[in-house]
Amino acid sequence: MPEQTPAAAAPQPSAKSCLQYVVCYGDTDMMGVVYYANYLVLFERARTKLLQDLGFPYRKMEAQGFALPILEAHADYRAPATYEDVLELWAWVEWIKGARLKVCCEVRRDGRLLVSGHTVHACMRIADKRPVRVIPELIACCPQCVAE
Amino acid sequence: MPEQTPAAAAPQPSAKSCLQYVVCYGDTDMMGVVYYANYLVLFERARTKLLQDLGFPYRKMEAQGFALPILEAHADYRAPATYEDVLELWAWVEWIKGARLKVCCEVRRDGRLLVSGHTVHACMRIADKRPVRVIPELIACCPQCVAE
Amino acid sequence: MPEQTPAAAAPQPSAKSCLQYVVCYGDTDMMGVVYYANYLVLFERARTKLLQDLGFPYRKMEAQGFALPILEAHADYRAPATYEDVLELWAWVEWIKGARLKVCCEVRRDGRLLVSGHTVHACMRIADKRPVRVIPELIACCPQCVAE
Amino acid sequence: MPEQTPAAAAPQPSAKSCLQYVVCYGDTDMMGVVYYANYLVLFERARTKLLQDLGFPYRKMEAQGFALPILEAHADYRAPATYEDVLELWAWVEWIKGARLKVCCEVRRDGRLLVSGHTVHACMRIADKRPVRVIPELIACCPQCVAE
Repeated sequence: MPEQTPAAAAPQPSAKSCLQYVVCYGDTDMMGVVYYANYLVLFERARTKLLQDLGFPYRKMEAQGFALPILEAHADYRAPATYEDVLELWAWVEWIKGARLKVCCEVRRDGRLLVSGHTVHACMRIADKRPVRVIPELIACCPQCVAE
Repeated sequence: MPEQTPAAAAPQPSAKSCLQYVVCYGDTDMMGVVYYANYLVLFERARTKLLQDLGFPYRKMEAQGFALPILEAHADYRAPATYEDVLELWAWVEWIKGARLKVCCEVRRDGRLLVSGHTVHACMRIADKRPVRVIPELIACCPQCVAE
Repeated sequence: MPEQTPAAAAPQPSAKSCLQYVVCYGDTDMMGVVYYANYLVLFERARTKLLQDLGFPYRKMEAQGFALPILEAHADYRAPATYEDVLELWAWVEWIKGARLKVCCEVRRDGRLLVSGHTVHACMRIADKRPVRVIPELIACCPQCVAE
Repeated sequence: MPEQTPAAAAPQPSAKSCLQYVVCYGDTDMMGVVYYANYLVLFERARTKLLQDLGFPYRKMEAQGFALPILEAHADYRAPATYEDVLELWAWVEWIKGARLKVCCEVRRDGRLLVSGHTVHACMRIADKRPVRVIPELIACCPQCVAE
């Protein structure tokens, strides 16, 4: 039986990044818990930390003329967080495909998963607001995430 | 050929509710457009208006001891909005199933769809924080949304 | 008795602008009332409406190359507002002096004063971020506000 | 010369508390800098840390039935902060008088003062929403702040 050409490697998520966050009063709503939209802000904090940990801070990317506008955001709420809770904000790159990438996020307290979700981003050249393939500097930070 | 028992009617979305909203400076971010998390706040404004239009304001529901905590939120971003834009915020009940209901939302400007999304809610008794079947007062407001 | 040179007219506040606003869940905090920082967002909404009413929208000012960065903000909290409250947001120009202007704001419910406050702004040329005398187009909208 | 009866000690500010904070995208506005209302959220973060450092976290105070609603807030803006800036948030109790206390806050970057301000709080019994003298547990944390 002839040897098979190895299939293209499936994309592997990047290393996970983690950030601690203390819930403030302004994060809560009259139900006494963190307001649902504020988790997307926490996801953004986690992504900022992720890019810093990957060695390619978002500010540096913008300085080079590229941005990562959000195409899609999703959150699943399992348990609430409240004032003064110390949260762990996790994020990792799930995949990179052409001009898009997906970042997954988790919000945990003492390890327990409270909220999970993701964002899908386009890679965009700021000058003309056109989508471009995810730039090599970012791919170089997480080569195992690239599909195909 | 025997007559068939008519199939259970498929759920139909409720009437759509619409609200006008003017983007403020605080809604924007340094990209010059509305920050992605703020659309979930706009979805909430649209839902509040929807429940008022259906004749069962959320404040009344809470006064009766029930809440609609969010299990899932999703947004698809197609085009950006910016400062002083006049937006139309649309919302409708997509379905009601047991202890859950789904609300769809759209953010439009001059009719053009900018962001669409949805939230899935549990119906919860506040006293013991237990899920309960969606309460009859709410079902009565949109009977055609109920599945089975 | 010799005629007196008339004293320089004291500055008079501009006409007041008013905007209706419905409190959303995201505006509240776990105390069950509107979070204190969010009133500054309401002040901004009131200022945006004020400039529109004066015939010189802020977006137009920015398009002409000028901005009104905030030097000082103040709020006095008298009574709380809560979810679904319908608020009236009032604003008026208190004075214009050289490169500065002061805007006063009030948040009312059914006429009752809940929060009052003000902001002091510089007039700034965006190109070089330098302060400049309040531009004639804005002065023309409220000539009675100019001191001296 | 007879010894003088020592005058009542003037109130002395408490020890200063400091917290690091990284600016996120959602904190900024289309001017490219932190939106002015968000500094009041940073002040709140600084106050939360202050009460923790004083040994009397706000959550504990609420659990004992007392709250510190805000009567007045003020901010002076000297220089802007932007995305990914690492800020130092300072806070201290300036004085305690009867049922009121004043907290001062500063936001700095690399030691440079960007924004300063303060809040004045009432001490309130949650059960009946009545003002009460600042509770002994809090006074015990900063006895030198008490006037008279």
